[in-house]
Amino acid sequence: MAKAYVYHAQDLFDFMVNFFVKLGVPNDRAVIVAEILQSADLRGVSSHGIIRLQTYYGSRLQKGLINPLADNEILRESPASIAIDGRNGLGQVAGKDAMLRCIEKAKTSGVAMVTVCNSNHYGIAGYYAMMALDHDMIGISFTNAQPLVAPTFGRNRLLGTNPIAVAAPAFAERPFVLDMATSIVPIGKVTVFDKSGEQLPEGWAVDARGDSTTNPQSVLNGGALFPLGGPELLRGYKGYGLALWVDIFSGVLSGAAFGKNVANPAKLANANVGHFFAAMRLDAFRDPDEFKKDLDELFTQLKTAEKADGQERIFIHGEKEFELTEKYQKEGIPLLEEVVKSLMSAGETVGVPFELVSLGEKEIDPAHAGN
Amino acid sequence: MAKAYVYHAQDLFDFMVNFFVKLGVPNDRAVIVAEILQSADLRGVSSHGIIRLQTYYGSRLQKGLINPLADNEILRESPASIAIDGRNGLGQVAGKDAMLRCIEKAKTSGVAMVTVCNSNHYGIAGYYAMMALDHDMIGISFTNAQPLVAPTFGRNRLLGTNPIAVAAPAFAERPFVLDMATSIVPIGKVTVFDKSGEQLPEGWAVDARGDSTTNPQSVLNGGALFPLGGPELLRGYKGYGLALWVDIFSGVLSGAAFGKNVANPAKLANANVGHFFAAMRLDAFRDPDEFKKDLDELFTQLKTAEKADGQERIFIHGEKEFELTEKYQKEGIPLLEEVVKSLMSAGETVGVPFELVSLGEKEIDPAHAGN
Repeated sequence: MAKAYVYHAQDLFDFMVNFFVKLGVPNDRAVIVAEILQSADLRGVSSHGIIRLQTYYGSRLQKGLINPLADNEILRESPASIAIDGRNGLGQVAGKDAMLRCIEKAKTSGVAMVTVCNSNHYGIAGYYAMMALDHDMIGISFTNAQPLVAPTFGRNRLLGTNPIAVAAPAFAERPFVLDMATSIVPIGKVTVFDKSGEQLPEGWAVDARGDSTTNPQSVLNGGALFPLGGPELLRGYKGYGLALWVDIFSGVLSGAAFGKNVANPAKLANANVGHFFAAMRLDAFRDPDEFKKDLDELFTQLKTAEKADGQERIFIHGEKEFELTEKYQKEGIPLLEEVVKSLMSAGETVGVPFELVSLGEKEIDPAHAGN
Repeated sequence: MAKAYVYHAQDLFDFMVNFFVKLGVPNDRAVIVAEILQSADLRGVSSHGIIRLQTYYGSRLQKGLINPLADNEILRESPASIAIDGRNGLGQVAGKDAMLRCIEKAKTSGVAMVTVCNSNHYGIAGYYAMMALDHDMIGISFTNAQPLVAPTFGRNRLLGTNPIAVAAPAFAERPFVLDMATSIVPIGKVTVFDKSGEQLPEGWAVDARGDSTTNPQSVLNGGALFPLGGPELLRGYKGYGLALWVDIFSGVLSGAAFGKNVANPAKLANANVGHFFAAMRLDAFRDPDEFKKDLDELFTQLKTAEKADGQERIFIHGEKEFELTEKYQKEGIPLLEEVVKSLMSAGETVGVPFELVSLGEKEIDPAHAGN
């Protein structure tokens, strides 16, 4: 267990906006980045939230490795697609603009797809997919990322944890929001186990020789993550295939970096991350209400089905995250003590002191919470 | 090990065409179905090949459960999408026509998507995705199927093994062809282990109480398959999410059956299977040759990387299947003795005797070969 402090979401949001503005990000863009980072914290995906403020964004803005003033540039356009150059701007700014354009295109063409090259880490993929929901559309987003995953029968880090996000609106039920890394776990999870001195479950990751290991140190020092599925016997090559698919759409198709060439945010180089977006008007295929009611019925089939021994609930993807968002918006967002310290240090560096009043303390189990 | 007989691909193809024609399928359509079934056998996905001739197609045609004369009907159309009613025709005929229309639409709109409801089992998803390759396009196909997979924390069969297929052309290398069920293994694999008296590897499937089991009988009698990833600890809910995604696109969006309502091909009812297709022109996003050369480079990064202990090769998705196709086209396709017997019996029922001359015999290990 580890100590955490709870803060008002709005307070954390304001701090992030001030932080980015101080670093030369125009206010309207700072709001976009803060909103997308906070959407991760609110959904319990703390690995993609405020914890990355300095390492993924602040330090890179300070070093001139991200251009906060860059505008998306259209490279190619067809009736139902756009290829965009993010011109090394903030990933969230490039990503949100790209998905908005994708939604606009889908309005006239029924469905649309947009790629972005020359971008940076854009936060959680799910945010962009969910943008489609208010328009009676299905949304999709993929992104590639720095290499952390070994291909089946390999031992080196060659592919990112390349997430897949898909969001679809239901009628009375909450939307379907799949937002999943194509590895079993993110590398941050291994770090957390390492810090707490715990062994990893068998099947999450490999050591430097490509053998499955339960030792976090063996993973962090030259090892790699398993793709979803794990070893070959359990069909880990399918997870490897999904990661490769995401890289082909986000990296190769957009003209961004791909495979082992996507830069780690800690590296002193342009990351050249690539993203992929799609939007699909429900009424291009069916009456939207009929679609939504059938989706409700599919969810009901799943949720009311018999549970496995010892289980009480079958979840729909996104359901836990919507519940957590409501809770955190009401009760505040818990941040681990070490995260608070890193925010204090980051705030000091930038000249925006982190002086928020905590709503209280709580103990959380970082190894078994969130993503 | 089990005895298999080897046959010329062309001989098997001709037998299938004659079989379907005898059952009232027009010759040009019989050719389509035979071609798609054979593409599975040639790729080593024998579970979706000639083995299904009678159970999935012949018996249903005989009983009037599939209409061999049905034409696809367009329900909705936008500049980049079509919603089709397959009118209970052959899944392969409906699917091939739908993907051809999708490719035509993408020619003018850049990208396109097509759904099909009221269809039947369409064979391997990869066939349709690969149709895009000759047009300098990326192809995608999903389909739902009869329920066999339990959701995470559930115990009942609620979702199909709902496959995802994606094909993208490379330059000097062979194309990327991901064609994967979103379960760990197909149910046919469990049947094969059962017949050979072997225990299943841990983590493939659950018994009637939703507990992981290695006993094939426990899976076949009221159990279910695990989604890709397996149990919750190994993030099986991601595989469950992928299966649900495929069902939402193939079943709910198309207006077909979904979840537990997709009929087993053995059932005396319309299956109302749904499919989803997408086609994306490479040049809507990038210079096609640049895309293909970058894809070659990504493959090279993967294939030339260091191998895990004891491994000699890292594969790209589709690579093994292309090699097998070349081999089987040259040397013939091996069919298990029991499959040959079932073809003889099916041929007798229909009045098209299976009298092919075998090229020879060989021993194969059904539990550890193919899909």
